[in-house]
Amino acid sequence: MTETNIQAGRLITLEGGEGAGKSTQINTVAALLKERGLKVVTTREPGGTRLGEAVRGVLMNEYDHPMPAMSELLLMFAARAAHLAQVIEPALARGAWVVTDRFTDASYAYQGAARGLGDDAVATLERLVQGERRPDGVLVFDIPVEQGLSRAGKRGHGNRFDRETVAFHERVRASYLARAEAAPERYRVIDAAAPLDRVREQIESALASWP
Amino acid sequence: MTETNIQAGRLITLEGGEGAGKSTQINTVAALLKERGLKVVTTREPGGTRLGEAVRGVLMNEYDHPMPAMSELLLMFAARAAHLAQVIEPALARGAWVVTDRFTDASYAYQGAARGLGDDAVATLERLVQGERRPDGVLVFDIPVEQGLSRAGKRGHGNRFDRETVAFHERVRASYLARAEAAPERYRVIDAAAPLDRVREQIESALASWP
Repeated sequence: MTETNIQAGRLITLEGGEGAGKSTQINTVAALLKERGLKVVTTREPGGTRLGEAVRGVLMNEYDHPMPAMSELLLMFAARAAHLAQVIEPALARGAWVVTDRFTDASYAYQGAARGLGDDAVATLERLVQGERRPDGVLVFDIPVEQGLSRAGKRGHGNRFDRETVAFHERVRASYLARAEAAPERYRVIDAAAPLDRVREQIESALASWP
Repeated sequence: MTETNIQAGRLITLEGGEGAGKSTQINTVAALLKERGLKVVTTREPGGTRLGEAVRGVLMNEYDHPMPAMSELLLMFAARAAHLAQVIEPALARGAWVVTDRFTDASYAYQGAARGLGDDAVATLERLVQGERRPDGVLVFDIPVEQGLSRAGKRGHGNRFDRETVAFHERVRASYLARAEAAPERYRVIDAAAPLDRVREQIESALASWP
C-alpha cells in the first residue's frame, strides 16, 4: 500500500528570456510541489555548484575580445556537467523533484538560435553531457521582449546578456516558443506578462497537468 | 620570383607530461624558426587569451567536489575555441608559425585516456570546435613518469594535475606515444630525459624534417 506514495524524482525546468520572472516564480513552483508532499531541490544555471558558480563568473565577465559563441556554449555545458553529476542526478536518485532556473533549452535559445551556432551543435553537446537525461517538464515564461527587458533593467544589474540587442532577444523568444510547440507534452507556456495571481494560476494548472 | 619566399603559416604544438621541459623548450623552437626568417607566435593552453587564462584559473582551482572529467574537457575546449578564434587562426592567416605549449593532443592524453572519457568524446569536440584544423607538426617531449614528476616537483608549484597518481601520468604518457606512433608524418618524439644540448639537437632535426 505504501508503494503508491513513492514517486520517482522529476526534473522541472524554468525557461524564458530576461525579465520573465523565473527567479521569482521558482519559489512558487517549489511551494506548490511541497504542498503535494514532494521533496524539492531548487537550483539554477549556469551555476548550481561551486564549479558552476566559478564558470558563471567567467561567463558574465567582459574580456578584451567578444567571447566566441562556441566558448560560451562549452562553458554552459561544463557547468551543466557538474550540475548534473553533483546536484541533479543525486537528487533525482533519492526521489526528489529538481526545479532549475534554466537548463539546456536555454542553450538552444541563446547559443543555438540567438548567437547562431545552430541546433545541431547544441544537440551534440546535449548527447555528450546528458546521455538520455531530458527535463520531465519545461515551464516557458513568455513575455514580449521590450516588456521583459524593461523589467530586467529595473533590477539594475544588467549583464552581458541583458545588454544584447532586441533582435537577439526576439530570437531567444522565438526559439523557446518553437521548442514548446514541437513537444507540447513536456512544455507549458506561461503568459508571464499577466498579473502575478494569474501567473500563479497558470503555474498551478501546468503542474497539475503533470501528474 | 618573390612568391618562393612566401610561406604559409603552420601550427606546431609541444606536448608531453609534467616536467618534460616544454615551457623551456618552446623558446628553443621559436628561436630556431626565427633563424629561418619565419614570423613566430608562441602561446600556451589552457590560456593564450584573457578568457582562456580565466578558464585556466577555474581549471587549476580546487572545489568542494572533484571536478567531473567532462567539465574539465569542456573547459579545455571552451578556452581552445577562443584561442583559435583570437590568436591561432589570425596568426596563421597572416603567414605566421604558431607554436603552442599544449593543444588538443593534451585533451586526448589527459581527459580522453588518463581520466577515462575515451577518444570519441574528445574527437566529437575536436570536430565541433576545430572543424578541419589540426596541428601541422607535434613535438612530443617524452620522459619517464617518475623522472618528470620529480622535475615538476622541483618547480614548487604543483597543481591539480601534478598531484595525480603515477598511474594517471603513465596513461598520459602512453596516450601521447600511441598517438605519435599512429601518425608518424606529423609527430616527432623527443627524448626529454637527454642532456639539454641533445634535446636541442633533436628539436633541430625534427623541425628540419618539416620543410
